[in-house]
Amino acid sequence: MKQIGIDLMGSDAGYSIFVDVLPKVIEANPNITFHIYGTQEAMDAFKDQERLVKHVCSEEIDMDDSPLTIRRKKDSSLNRMMIDLGKGELDGVFSAASTAGIILTAHSNVKLKEGIDRSFLIAGLPTKKDHPVYLGDMGANAECTADNLVQFAHEAYRFVKKLGVKNPRVGLLNIGSEEVKGDHMRKEVYQRLKEDNTLNFQGNCESRDLLSGEFDVVIADGFSGNVLLKSLEGSASFFVSLLKETMMSSFTSKLAALLLKKKLYGMKEKINYKNYGGACLLGFEKPIIKTHGSSDETSIRSTVNQLIQLVNSPESVI
Amino acid sequence: MKQIGIDLMGSDAGYSIFVDVLPKVIEANPNITFHIYGTQEAMDAFKDQERLVKHVCSEEIDMDDSPLTIRRKKDSSLNRMMIDLGKGELDGVFSAASTAGIILTAHSNVKLKEGIDRSFLIAGLPTKKDHPVYLGDMGANAECTADNLVQFAHEAYRFVKKLGVKNPRVGLLNIGSEEVKGDHMRKEVYQRLKEDNTLNFQGNCESRDLLSGEFDVVIADGFSGNVLLKSLEGSASFFVSLLKETMMSSFTSKLAALLLKKKLYGMKEKINYKNYGGACLLGFEKPIIKTHGSSDETSIRSTVNQLIQLVNSPESVI
Repeated sequence: MKQIGIDLMGSDAGYSIFVDVLPKVIEANPNITFHIYGTQEAMDAFKDQERLVKHVCSEEIDMDDSPLTIRRKKDSSLNRMMIDLGKGELDGVFSAASTAGIILTAHSNVKLKEGIDRSFLIAGLPTKKDHPVYLGDMGANAECTADNLVQFAHEAYRFVKKLGVKNPRVGLLNIGSEEVKGDHMRKEVYQRLKEDNTLNFQGNCESRDLLSGEFDVVIADGFSGNVLLKSLEGSASFFVSLLKETMMSSFTSKLAALLLKKKLYGMKEKINYKNYGGACLLGFEKPIIKTHGSSDETSIRSTVNQLIQLVNSPESVI
Repeated sequence: MKQIGIDLMGSDAGYSIFVDVLPKVIEANPNITFHIYGTQEAMDAFKDQERLVKHVCSEEIDMDDSPLTIRRKKDSSLNRMMIDLGKGELDGVFSAASTAGIILTAHSNVKLKEGIDRSFLIAGLPTKKDHPVYLGDMGANAECTADNLVQFAHEAYRFVKKLGVKNPRVGLLNIGSEEVKGDHMRKEVYQRLKEDNTLNFQGNCESRDLLSGEFDVVIADGFSGNVLLKSLEGSASFFVSLLKETMMSSFTSKLAALLLKKKLYGMKEKINYKNYGGACLLGFEKPIIKTHGSSDETSIRSTVNQLIQLVNSPESVI
């Protein structure tokens, strides 16, 4: 029986967003015990159910808590869950709390894997093809070494394999496609990944090709990874506003917009990167999955299901 | 009388793209002498005209010439023009040649300004507001120091001021808006720019806010600046393909697309970053302006006009 931890308190919408979703997920996964962490009030919102274990906590992490405050809240749902993960009592955890909260509580309570110096954030983004591309580090480490990037590549490769991709194609985020491009660190990482037979290295990936679908994993230092991720968010928002402006600019275009309403909404949802499911904090023995605080039910369900897929995957460690 | 140099050979379309444009530009600017550099064949395509000086060269730089080849072609139109710029015979130059070609020939022949350690590339991008934002370095330097970034900030501030913006708002590309965000270099640059009264520093700019219109200039190291720029290109292309797919997905949407044809084309052009006019190689006493090799007549005209604006600007140096 696998054990999964769920922090009920991180979402902007509060624990209530789990009330409908969770009982169904529990029912659908008879090989998993679900541990929920939250306040007494949150616990009372859930009927007793088989394979549901309640952990009552007296505190919760707020979205804008400072690192100091996060560290002080020892009895927060998030910290309590990480303590249990660190003890080996859980096989994977989920939270919608702040990235800072998740990183801090994870590092306070859970050991990094042997041979891994840094944890890092990875997430899937929609591509032109029918599969996502996973980008990591997305911003956990503002400064990275060549060793870090090589470790990220291995962790990310294993992670995406566990999500069902057979031999994930790994790319290195760089400012040119040729081997000799980039700074010293990128040149070193390129050579080390190229000589590594244990992963399927495909060479450099320029940011303009991230969404091409030619890669399953793209490795970046946290600075440029974060610049890239937020740039996708920014340009999506720019395009949507430009499209709105175009649609509202004349009678004819308003008419056309009316005809397209549903389709345009679907398109907007596809490029809404903020909504794009879970990110995983890699580098630990067990998966730590987060989703955006503003995630809706659909997004929370899909992220929890991703965690279940990882936990159920044949190899027992990430 | 100001002197402007124009390399006729860099464009993908060859010198012919200048044949209609240039005589009109020359006529419209009676205070400027235009020096054109190109092969004998290119020269023959231009009638003699007042304030037009022809410089016949025996070679030209090709788009995919290696650095070694570029250096060897001493009599290329680009190199000859840079020699004259270095001698002080020109007040500014324009080329549509490769970035590598322009950077190499500039550094071989033209001295950097006193106090400037590196040249860098800057270009304007469309924002949500009715003015562009200038991003630099866009990729000339894969590795940068804090000194470089501070110098970029001053050069870029002066440059945008010359383009007519009164007190350009300067931002620092970073992975968070707060003062304490980013790597060590970014934290140092933040403090130095904040304490500097000679420019209008507005704090950190996250990549998602680049197109917000809240900044006139955003300073980046060449690695993350290039990642950001190419990411805008990539997501624009992704967005256009998504829009096409949406428009072609049913009879109704095809009808709507027909109604919107002209407007959607205009929108596509607005986000076509490849076409987005000139980039400037800053760090020298005189402006060096480049445009994409695939630029059309309109784009070439607007870039040459930008050069004229810079050359005519009250201060005599960039």
